[in-house]
Amino acid sequence: MSIDLNCDMGEGYGSYTMGSDEEVMPLVSSANVACGFHASDPATMHRTVRLAKQHGVAVGAHPSFPDLVGFGRRQLAASPQEIRDDVLYQVGALWAFCRAEGVRLRHVKAHGALYNAAAKDLPTALAIAEAVRDVDPTLWLVCLSRSALVEAARRTGLPHVEEAFADRAYARDGALVPRSVPGAVIHDAARVEERVLRMVREGKVQSIDGVDVPIAAGTICVHGDTPGAVGLARAIRERLQREGVEVAAFSKEGAK
Amino acid sequence: MSIDLNCDMGEGYGSYTMGSDEEVMPLVSSANVACGFHASDPATMHRTVRLAKQHGVAVGAHPSFPDLVGFGRRQLAASPQEIRDDVLYQVGALWAFCRAEGVRLRHVKAHGALYNAAAKDLPTALAIAEAVRDVDPTLWLVCLSRSALVEAARRTGLPHVEEAFADRAYARDGALVPRSVPGAVIHDAARVEERVLRMVREGKVQSIDGVDVPIAAGTICVHGDTPGAVGLARAIRERLQREGVEVAAFSKEGAK
Amino acid sequence: MSIDLNCDMGEGYGSYTMGSDEEVMPLVSSANVACGFHASDPATMHRTVRLAKQHGVAVGAHPSFPDLVGFGRRQLAASPQEIRDDVLYQVGALWAFCRAEGVRLRHVKAHGALYNAAAKDLPTALAIAEAVRDVDPTLWLVCLSRSALVEAARRTGLPHVEEAFADRAYARDGALVPRSVPGAVIHDAARVEERVLRMVREGKVQSIDGVDVPIAAGTICVHGDTPGAVGLARAIRERLQREGVEVAAFSKEGAK
Amino acid sequence: MSIDLNCDMGEGYGSYTMGSDEEVMPLVSSANVACGFHASDPATMHRTVRLAKQHGVAVGAHPSFPDLVGFGRRQLAASPQEIRDDVLYQVGALWAFCRAEGVRLRHVKAHGALYNAAAKDLPTALAIAEAVRDVDPTLWLVCLSRSALVEAARRTGLPHVEEAFADRAYARDGALVPRSVPGAVIHDAARVEERVLRMVREGKVQSIDGVDVPIAAGTICVHGDTPGAVGLARAIRERLQREGVEVAAFSKEGAK
Repeated sequence: MSIDLNCDMGEGYGSYTMGSDEEVMPLVSSANVACGFHASDPATMHRTVRLAKQHGVAVGAHPSFPDLVGFGRRQLAASPQEIRDDVLYQVGALWAFCRAEGVRLRHVKAHGALYNAAAKDLPTALAIAEAVRDVDPTLWLVCLSRSALVEAARRTGLPHVEEAFADRAYARDGALVPRSVPGAVIHDAARVEERVLRMVREGKVQSIDGVDVPIAAGTICVHGDTPGAVGLARAIRERLQREGVEVAAFSKEGAK
Repeated sequence: MSIDLNCDMGEGYGSYTMGSDEEVMPLVSSANVACGFHASDPATMHRTVRLAKQHGVAVGAHPSFPDLVGFGRRQLAASPQEIRDDVLYQVGALWAFCRAEGVRLRHVKAHGALYNAAAKDLPTALAIAEAVRDVDPTLWLVCLSRSALVEAARRTGLPHVEEAFADRAYARDGALVPRSVPGAVIHDAARVEERVLRMVREGKVQSIDGVDVPIAAGTICVHGDTPGAVGLARAIRERLQREGVEVAAFSKEGAK
Repeated sequence: MSIDLNCDMGEGYGSYTMGSDEEVMPLVSSANVACGFHASDPATMHRTVRLAKQHGVAVGAHPSFPDLVGFGRRQLAASPQEIRDDVLYQVGALWAFCRAEGVRLRHVKAHGALYNAAAKDLPTALAIAEAVRDVDPTLWLVCLSRSALVEAARRTGLPHVEEAFADRAYARDGALVPRSVPGAVIHDAARVEERVLRMVREGKVQSIDGVDVPIAAGTICVHGDTPGAVGLARAIRERLQREGVEVAAFSKEGAK
Repeated sequence: MSIDLNCDMGEGYGSYTMGSDEEVMPLVSSANVACGFHASDPATMHRTVRLAKQHGVAVGAHPSFPDLVGFGRRQLAASPQEIRDDVLYQVGALWAFCRAEGVRLRHVKAHGALYNAAAKDLPTALAIAEAVRDVDPTLWLVCLSRSALVEAARRTGLPHVEEAFADRAYARDGALVPRSVPGAVIHDAARVEERVLRMVREGKVQSIDGVDVPIAAGTICVHGDTPGAVGLARAIRERLQREGVEVAAFSKEGAK
């Protein structure tokens, strides 16, 4: 029994730092590396790929709308064609650092507002999926569970994995409870660990109103941008290992 | 007997246009495509690669210092490591559009101030060459004749080609006469054609002070950013063809 | 009897040109100068302010969402607070060039997607109006007729002027007919001239379906980004003058 | 007896933080606020001006070469005209936030590579000084002691102040010892305090090789970008106050 832990990485920019990549990298199995549109720059990308390589962590691209000042969190009315070209550009840029370090680029996970748009809007999701397929049809697409991205991956024939969130509450229909709702983010480490274990072993999570919801998560998203987040990631990692669940990249050779 | 004609392409940005790519593409055999740092954006890059494909023109990357407002013409005190990562990023970005269009990326030619710096400064030249080699050691490096870039290509084992300029005067030592010197740019089409023919057939060009200078040009740079430039490129192309000189990419399969 | 003609200006960027500022400046009475977020750069802004000064044209700021590659035409989910600060920044930047040239900054007209958002969404409109008031409460706000911007100008106490479009069809309710509708843009110069004259003299325009609509335009927007647009602006200017209508800035001293 | 303490502020960007503005602002008398070219964005600038206002700290602009990814630390071959327009733009942008908060913009201090270039190169220094004078000839220019900036301030008639560095060693000729030289940065708080006191009281500092050097510092630069730097700034502030030296902005009304 195994599960993937993924984390957004390489989100500094120039002299600015974001997150604790050195501490988090040993804890996860997949790194989503920012590509310069919401965060990161060439030097940061190179350093992040090298760090992932040192820890045997699978490298994926983390493309975004072009919005550095807004950290990619603001919806932008880009056309599907613009999104496709923006994703091609970013995936290619990261690919070069993978080549330079002799590692394979494994997956793509859209960032922030682009990820949210792609979860709801099929043309946006297809624009991303087509860009990924056009670069390399063996790349995995990381998709919000039950979202338009899943449908886009199917239509384009891309291998894909559904993502669950370790510390987020779910609604009865499997959707994430918005952060504005009390209880949407779970801070208690023991509870988070239990939820992750149950997702992995039983494919279920209890909704915010107490109903068991099926969840087909092939990867669990953890965060590394606060001291608390790093501690939580470490707690999850250690608990999984104590319980005999291997932490391994969904994209490892022959995983499809 | 054959020679390559190369031209900088895809140098628009968003709503802005630069040059006459549609008119020039049929005239050349190699296109140096801007990668977003001094010019171009993802949509423009994609369009340019597609246009090159339609005309069977070899696609190369045209990386620059990050200076959009200065069009990459201003020297920037970037470290060799920063230059290496900037080049990796840009070459990778263009590679993605080549993949999407099913064409091979063939060569890399640095732009503007970066090209000039690399011609004189070996650490800069090595930073570029190492980045290119680390992405793909079969990529060709376009080098100013007798410059530090040639030395860098040799040290990194990259295939390389020396570039001559159709409409520029040369000094006795083979260096370009600076644009500030009267006579540095040759506007007379007939004279330009003759010079190009002599470079190709005899490997020689007459210096501004009347001495024959050996020149080992594997590619001739033409411009497309003014109506006059397009006309000159067309005149050179047609003259070469009338004289039985084939216009063909230096980077074509098996060309090394 | 007088009317203002306004045009977006200074929309080049670095080596890129946009529009025909030299030709259009003598034809208009108000220039909306781009401020670096959708177009323009410091050198272009300075040049444009100097050109306006030479022709006695009133200078206004033309702030936008930060989206250079999209030319500010794409809606961005910026918060009102972000919009307020972005407008403050851009208006201040242009103000400096006015100071350096000894001209007064007179008005502010939002650009593209920001203008469209402000026309419909009161919080966006208020964000712009509050920023303008906070810099200088004597600045005029240019508003789409009957839009939320008019309401925002009233609430903040800013002097404001309603804008009509010379070459655009209007619906029965006074709204612009979307460009996607056939007939939305009027290309016939004689018809455009007649419409402008009637707006000025009678305060009316005929809707696309033939009904007279009241229109309280204090300024008419003309374009300068195509050869045809310049010709149309010239035709309007000359017709107004032949008919005895003065072309003069709405923001001239004592105009409120 | 009084002295000014100045610190670079507002050097975050979007989601990124830099320095400890909240902790440092109460300790200094002048804040040099980044203007978006090497750091900062409109929201950060507004917040920083508001914070300075709360603590009665004089606000100055801190313009830079356009190099966000390099934090303005890399020399760029911009022309004097480009530098002048870049400075106008940045000073104007900051001015708007001062207007919105009802505080006066007091001074300008160039950042990083631009400051270093202006210290040595008179055309660069004049470009900065002329831009400042053209916006407002009552603005103070902060100058490296004995540098070309001092000369530029004199020629343009700007009020100016010479700056000393609390924790940096000086050579016998009054120049800063380059950071690469051992002993160039003084970390011992007590020694730093003594040096500052002697600069203020006696106008002297001991050079790295033991000779007394005259220094006419009207402002002392402190840093706030590390925990140690904040502690050092606090130590200096408290020592000055214990010794009866007032910490007050050089630019306060009537200070010239």
